[in-house]
Amino acid sequence: MNGLGFTGGRLDRADPLRHDEPGFAAALADPAARLLILNEYQPVMAEGRLGWTAIAPDARPEDHVLLGIEDGVPHFARLVAEPAAGRSVEMIAALHALAAGEAATYAAARSVLDWHARHGFCARCGAATAPFRAGWGRRCPACGTEHFPRVDPVVIMIAEHDGRALLGRQPAFPPGRYSALAGFLEPGESIEEAVVRELFEEAGVRVRDVRYIASQPWPFPSSLMIACVATALDDRLAIDTTELEDAIWVSRDEVRAALAGDASRFGVPPAYAIAHTLLETWAR
Amino acid sequence: MNGLGFTGGRLDRADPLRHDEPGFAAALADPAARLLILNEYQPVMAEGRLGWTAIAPDARPEDHVLLGIEDGVPHFARLVAEPAAGRSVEMIAALHALAAGEAATYAAARSVLDWHARHGFCARCGAATAPFRAGWGRRCPACGTEHFPRVDPVVIMIAEHDGRALLGRQPAFPPGRYSALAGFLEPGESIEEAVVRELFEEAGVRVRDVRYIASQPWPFPSSLMIACVATALDDRLAIDTTELEDAIWVSRDEVRAALAGDASRFGVPPAYAIAHTLLETWAR
Repeated sequence: MNGLGFTGGRLDRADPLRHDEPGFAAALADPAARLLILNEYQPVMAEGRLGWTAIAPDARPEDHVLLGIEDGVPHFARLVAEPAAGRSVEMIAALHALAAGEAATYAAARSVLDWHARHGFCARCGAATAPFRAGWGRRCPACGTEHFPRVDPVVIMIAEHDGRALLGRQPAFPPGRYSALAGFLEPGESIEEAVVRELFEEAGVRVRDVRYIASQPWPFPSSLMIACVATALDDRLAIDTTELEDAIWVSRDEVRAALAGDASRFGVPPAYAIAHTLLETWAR
Repeated sequence: MNGLGFTGGRLDRADPLRHDEPGFAAALADPAARLLILNEYQPVMAEGRLGWTAIAPDARPEDHVLLGIEDGVPHFARLVAEPAAGRSVEMIAALHALAAGEAATYAAARSVLDWHARHGFCARCGAATAPFRAGWGRRCPACGTEHFPRVDPVVIMIAEHDGRALLGRQPAFPPGRYSALAGFLEPGESIEEAVVRELFEEAGVRVRDVRYIASQPWPFPSSLMIACVATALDDRLAIDTTELEDAIWVSRDEVRAALAGDASRFGVPPAYAIAHTLLETWAR
């Protein structure tokens, strides 16, 4: 799949530098090195692109994450003290304006910075931890445990039955919007099993033949969205009203109309969300 | 995909009970309730199946995880003080003997128990945390942060070129074994991007057209294995010797022979590992 939101990043993550402390420090001291400009977690745009600045002369390696290298130039982000708040309207507007690869760079930076801000202490022993591996981990000085950024897999899926697709509406959605159902994958289950479980839990729908469609990182705060289609055994619904306020079966024509901007039946998620891609793929 | 190791569990995870503390306590007090018998983290088999016993009369909800419900009977596991050690030879033998659905139940239990043992403190503030949600989370009494079990997505993949597949050998493998390359997916990348990055990092191979094949939970300690095939642009190799001690291109006939037990060229991973399924799928 091409063109998915938050994919297409151009930075080489430069894994060997993460295991080379002097090399990491030298990269930060490189006069060509660039620092991502953030206002807390908001990207600060310059002419419709991510804004970058020079590294301060007194910059300390332990305050920085190596995002990666492009054309020999190391790119960094600086740790933020507090975790990210939710997405703002300004953030959404900025994401719309970014080219795909730029949004990917921002997504990786946001996820890893937010992880540091939420994981300053050792879950094993409670002591304060410190960054290592060029900002791609934290280590506990008391018990030696190494911690690495979380990526939480989420399944997001359409059940289909007799030419119609199941969409749901969460109370927090903008008015009129419906989207694919979704939920966190749990320990001890495959992608396919998580799809089956979530569709039954949220909508009472039994499915078979789960097919993988596409995946996308989602930096709010750090999910891996895994999009699938499954075949429903019938179209009876039993909605879990703690999760959804409504669920509907929609035809391909209705999905095509909604994707074309006609919100009379329902509105679709924005183009940078994989649910949009999933609906496009299903409607074809 | 059917028949993958650690899939096919029969327990209903009973999500509503996780949000119903009195219901959870009542399920634990149900005379029919069953407790998974473990010796530390080793399954204790009875006639080739997982062993279960009754819940002790003085059992405390906060020491237990609700694994799920089958035929109205709640199934539990009891928290273990220390994290799991590595896989033992006895463990591997036991896994071979278990039916698929039983191994899935064990895998979920092992992953979540091990997560509790490794996450007794709040990563946000350092205070000791306590289980909640029927053992599927921990909450910090000091700062209120809720923590949930990790699932770490791992890509495992074959690059193919001109009818041959790329396999690698890690130093820790048993003598003669080769397998698909693998690595952790990172924040800010899709499954497809992680496959491209890992194949280049570990073997210097550039690929396109990443295709998803299957997925599997892997409870050592708590990974989601995501198996893919990708098309290599050429067959030149540049092996990262910190990860692999060798990498080879093998033909379909060679893979078929190895799967049939002929280890003269190389030995394959065991049947419960998704690399085995990936090789079978590719060889067909």
